[in-house]
Amino acid sequence: MSEPVTGVRALLRPDLQGRTPYGAPQLDVPVALNTNESSYPVPDAVVQTIVERVGEVAASLNRYPDREFTRLRTELAAYLTRTTGPVLSADQLWAGNGSNEVLSHLVQAFGGPGRTALGFTPSYSMHPIITRSLGTEWVDGLRGSADGLFDLDVDRAVEQARTTDPNLVFLTSPNNPTGTALSLDVVAAVYDAAPHAVIVVDEAYAEFARPGTPSATTLLAGRDRLVVTRTMSKAFAFAGVRLGYLAADAQLTELLRLVRLPYHLSAVTQAVALAALEHADLMLGMVEAIKTERDRLVDGALSLGLRPVPSDANFVLVGGFVDAPRTWQALLEEGVLVRDVGIPHHLRITAGTPQETDAVLAALASVGGSDREEQVR
Amino acid sequence: MSEPVTGVRALLRPDLQGRTPYGAPQLDVPVALNTNESSYPVPDAVVQTIVERVGEVAASLNRYPDREFTRLRTELAAYLTRTTGPVLSADQLWAGNGSNEVLSHLVQAFGGPGRTALGFTPSYSMHPIITRSLGTEWVDGLRGSADGLFDLDVDRAVEQARTTDPNLVFLTSPNNPTGTALSLDVVAAVYDAAPHAVIVVDEAYAEFARPGTPSATTLLAGRDRLVVTRTMSKAFAFAGVRLGYLAADAQLTELLRLVRLPYHLSAVTQAVALAALEHADLMLGMVEAIKTERDRLVDGALSLGLRPVPSDANFVLVGGFVDAPRTWQALLEEGVLVRDVGIPHHLRITAGTPQETDAVLAALASVGGSDREEQVR
Repeated sequence: MSEPVTGVRALLRPDLQGRTPYGAPQLDVPVALNTNESSYPVPDAVVQTIVERVGEVAASLNRYPDREFTRLRTELAAYLTRTTGPVLSADQLWAGNGSNEVLSHLVQAFGGPGRTALGFTPSYSMHPIITRSLGTEWVDGLRGSADGLFDLDVDRAVEQARTTDPNLVFLTSPNNPTGTALSLDVVAAVYDAAPHAVIVVDEAYAEFARPGTPSATTLLAGRDRLVVTRTMSKAFAFAGVRLGYLAADAQLTELLRLVRLPYHLSAVTQAVALAALEHADLMLGMVEAIKTERDRLVDGALSLGLRPVPSDANFVLVGGFVDAPRTWQALLEEGVLVRDVGIPHHLRITAGTPQETDAVLAALASVGGSDREEQVR
Repeated sequence: MSEPVTGVRALLRPDLQGRTPYGAPQLDVPVALNTNESSYPVPDAVVQTIVERVGEVAASLNRYPDREFTRLRTELAAYLTRTTGPVLSADQLWAGNGSNEVLSHLVQAFGGPGRTALGFTPSYSMHPIITRSLGTEWVDGLRGSADGLFDLDVDRAVEQARTTDPNLVFLTSPNNPTGTALSLDVVAAVYDAAPHAVIVVDEAYAEFARPGTPSATTLLAGRDRLVVTRTMSKAFAFAGVRLGYLAADAQLTELLRLVRLPYHLSAVTQAVALAALEHADLMLGMVEAIKTERDRLVDGALSLGLRPVPSDANFVLVGGFVDAPRTWQALLEEGVLVRDVGIPHHLRITAGTPQETDAVLAALASVGGSDREEQVR
């Protein structure tokens, strides 16, 4: 028997009743590997530029920011051009307070009541949350291929896109929480199979992919319904700044101005993001080190009898636990916070510093809980 | 004949078709009095604290911010307690990237498809825009009383609240763009007349009201559906930072966590807002000077044969123009940017520095355009 809904809670939108707020626990632990942040602090040289740039804008914070954040769009376009290949212009770029806000703009513009978004789960859990909280129907597509449970192959993706005929499709490369990159063949095929949809490729973790893995930005030319989203939170080690962005056809980004709140990006956010982009190479300097730790995590998990999923990201989804919530709790008691993403027998572990890899592998060895280990017993 | 909708625009949510983005022109002019910003730069001492505080958090921007922004809520509660009277606690406070985001959270939580919001226009134009862009029906209530066209009296407000039985009511004190404060009798009466509604009192300009004007925070005790929204953009002279907030019953603010995007307030925004709150008295130091200029604007407009509306805010709505858009353009050609808010024969002018008051009054005298002047001719 559920409690009766009383007081102001009774006034809540009916479809929000009974929900709980999204968010991983923010606990103060020695080893926090639960939110795919970078474990590496912002380098001193960048801290200095951030302070300088904020100092330059602080006196004029009485004025509204540049609503069009033109310099920031220009620099983000230059960064994507330099790192992914195709020449992008500022009017193809859009940004928000975290990629969640950018995704919200897309759902607000192209979703809405009576409209449908398709995604392939398990994937980034904010995709369905944002979709539903903006009154759009979410269709939970299925992953799986001959190669693996969490892969997405062309045939399976195309079939679901055709059947659903959605208004939005969320693809992810690499996928969170599974870590696997997506072949661009799938993106191109889904684009053709869903002719009424805006196709969103969430590339939050793209900088961690294997060398030579192409970005979906290489597919933008001639596809005016395709969107590639990115974030400065992960490879850029800038989660605290909340800067997400996207690249798409300029006509599509123009439509997002209909749903953004005016002046949504503060003058400080613009200044701080520009400061980091001045030092892009330095900010991205830890990517190779993190990839090394990711691979160590995979190897270490394997040698403990666990089943890590191959990863192109800064985390590893590790399978093979008898009781993942129990192991999550046991690791926490050892001072190691990882993420229970709700997939039975799996936990997601962020790749951090070498010391953190040592700590999480030692903790995993200490708490046990792999199903192979159980079989041995 | 309207142009056919083609390309990606055809995929836009149907009710957004044909709309244009919200936003005043951002033009580079000598005298910008169009967006109710403060004309006074952030004081040097505050600039210094901002830079220090950003320097303190910059190295750890690799980590996500405090999702609960607990220190900021604590300091905002202390500020409201000190300046408006009732003792408020941190769990009664909520904040977002500008009051627009805070208003969006309210509409998302308590509005939605099939639900209705009532506001009394002319008022802040973002209220209907946010409401509609989140799929909620907007009911355009009417102002007017024996005392004035733009006032809102108890009987008229209560009657419309009863008839509409809305899910949200937007009240404003002082009202933008008319400048008039609202009696708390109206707030209390509307609260009782709309028993299924969250009642939002938008107090963006409250710090500019006449001495002794009480805040609606004094009505919060015992009213769990009442919300008072504020911003640091206006009296706090902090438009560039985008920090809006609200006070309400703790059970109501808890529900907003269901619709906020996780980590919506960056670590930098939190640090910069806290720096300004350390210097609240200094930040608010220009309020009296601005009120003096507001009163000079009223007097000056009267002596030019115009009809300024009495104002408790940092702007004056001036009536009595034969052709307001024509006068707006003529003022712009004189280097003075004011706001055409779409009310026939009226223009809204922000109160700035003494020099800006001189400039706008001189420009008004030079371009003419009052209807009394026309009668004389």
